[in-house]
Amino acid sequence: MNNFIYAADLFGTVVFAISGALAAGRLRMDPFGVLVLAGVTAVGGGTVRDAILGATPVFWITNTIYVWLIALTAALVILLVRCPRRLSGRWFQVADAFGLAVFTVIGAQKALSFGTSPLIAIMMGTMTGVMGGMIRDVLCREVPLVLRTEIYATACIAGGVLYVSALALGLAPVFAAVLGMLGTLVLRLVGIFTGLSLPAFALDKPEKH
Amino acid sequence: MNNFIYAADLFGTVVFAISGALAAGRLRMDPFGVLVLAGVTAVGGGTVRDAILGATPVFWITNTIYVWLIALTAALVILLVRCPRRLSGRWFQVADAFGLAVFTVIGAQKALSFGTSPLIAIMMGTMTGVMGGMIRDVLCREVPLVLRTEIYATACIAGGVLYVSALALGLAPVFAAVLGMLGTLVLRLVGIFTGLSLPAFALDKPEKH
Amino acid sequence: MNNFIYAADLFGTVVFAISGALAAGRLRMDPFGVLVLAGVTAVGGGTVRDAILGATPVFWITNTIYVWLIALTAALVILLVRCPRRLSGRWFQVADAFGLAVFTVIGAQKALSFGTSPLIAIMMGTMTGVMGGMIRDVLCREVPLVLRTEIYATACIAGGVLYVSALALGLAPVFAAVLGMLGTLVLRLVGIFTGLSLPAFALDKPEKH
Repeated sequence: MNNFIYAADLFGTVVFAISGALAAGRLRMDPFGVLVLAGVTAVGGGTVRDAILGATPVFWITNTIYVWLIALTAALVILLVRCPRRLSGRWFQVADAFGLAVFTVIGAQKALSFGTSPLIAIMMGTMTGVMGGMIRDVLCREVPLVLRTEIYATACIAGGVLYVSALALGLAPVFAAVLGMLGTLVLRLVGIFTGLSLPAFALDKPEKH
Repeated sequence: MNNFIYAADLFGTVVFAISGALAAGRLRMDPFGVLVLAGVTAVGGGTVRDAILGATPVFWITNTIYVWLIALTAALVILLVRCPRRLSGRWFQVADAFGLAVFTVIGAQKALSFGTSPLIAIMMGTMTGVMGGMIRDVLCREVPLVLRTEIYATACIAGGVLYVSALALGLAPVFAAVLGMLGTLVLRLVGIFTGLSLPAFALDKPEKH
Repeated sequence: MNNFIYAADLFGTVVFAISGALAAGRLRMDPFGVLVLAGVTAVGGGTVRDAILGATPVFWITNTIYVWLIALTAALVILLVRCPRRLSGRWFQVADAFGLAVFTVIGAQKALSFGTSPLIAIMMGTMTGVMGGMIRDVLCREVPLVLRTEIYATACIAGGVLYVSALALGLAPVFAAVLGMLGTLVLRLVGIFTGLSLPAFALDKPEKH
């Protein structure tokens, strides 16, 4: 089972790296830019989480497979992708939802293993899931998409709540993890396939700041 | 007295969180966006300070009251605020100045407790005061306001200098803290009520970078 | 020799600080903004490196000469610079290339001293060289230049590869360091004087994100 989570983690890393590499391509970056955007999208969230927890050196320094995977993904995207639309389609969004679910539970798990409260674990799970994409968007000079769109971070929060609740109720860690992932995944798929989103909090811009 | 500083710290956290939530509202973000902007504005400066000092896990992980306060503030802003102009007015700026003063002294204090030099303590105090707002502005795709406007960071630096000087002169820590806070507060209020600002350093943009 | 590397490090710090201060001037920031941009450009890369490695408190907290140098540089730029074009010219770019070369090798060296693999050391060297400029650009609301232009990060990567390869081949650390610096410097100079750059990875923007 832990092997399954590890494999899912690597799969999520590749999917997130592809999403970063495509963003770089849209801004006509050079190969280094593609590598950087692939990297921050894939491991940015976990890196900030580890720095905040004090889990240093951060995870990809001790296990360099993440770095190799990102470099390989960036190279393949540059060489093979000509028509990004296929990769922005539904199937890619479903893969991204799967990555999001895994990252969320892994992030919450790591926080708990550092002795944090369940509240902080939910936050850290969400941060692991969404912060890489936020950094990618800031580097691309965009307001992070996750701050204004459909059910995305909400799915992480809900999955995190499910996960820590299941643990608190005494479920085996493996079942709690699967439950948390399913919660995030299902809710995110609802967002993707229905286009549902949370109502925006909209204020008028003041005339003078 | 330490109770006073702690209460002031929580008050400052709420004020900064409101300022972040309002920025999110101006960009029509969803509730998660409001939460994130409220959070980075309120605890972003202290988080970066702690990561740089190596004071990990950072402060809001061990004391989760900050997280609850931010979540509550974000929820109340979404539910209650319809007319942001009242919250951008003078009274709010005065409350913000008070938060700035507390954050500055607390940040300098924490740095000194980690054995840094007075110079670094002044920097860390200023960082605690202003960096949350800088991250908020970057997420909103704006050049951080604090880098170009009135007496804001300057007030932190002056308050920090007062604080570490008072300590060096042998004053009781409590009096030094009050002096540092008053210094920041008064100077910031001067900025608010007179509109005074430092002269800008303006270069022509080169035709070609 | 270690004295030479230390002197080169301080020289690089000044050059990078000037580049940050000039960026602040182009956006008409106040003196605090100039200080912040000079600082993040000069020590931002090393700060992120140290936070990721867990080398806290970060380097400029224990050795404050970097902070004094940055403050002095920012003050001198404000007082003396009227015509930034002279400082954006070829000579300044050569000085910047020199700083880049030193920062790269120092960053890789520090990573290795924390027991990382050569791959991570190359990454950390590159990060030390380029991330300060990336943060500067983000604060100026620009897509980081290094992600799309000429041979810049590429020079860091090549220099890092040379450095760790030379160490692996058993060369004395001093010679490996000089070799790594020369590699970065020469490749960067080629970029400056020929205008060569890597081919961009360009995708069409999707009609709908």
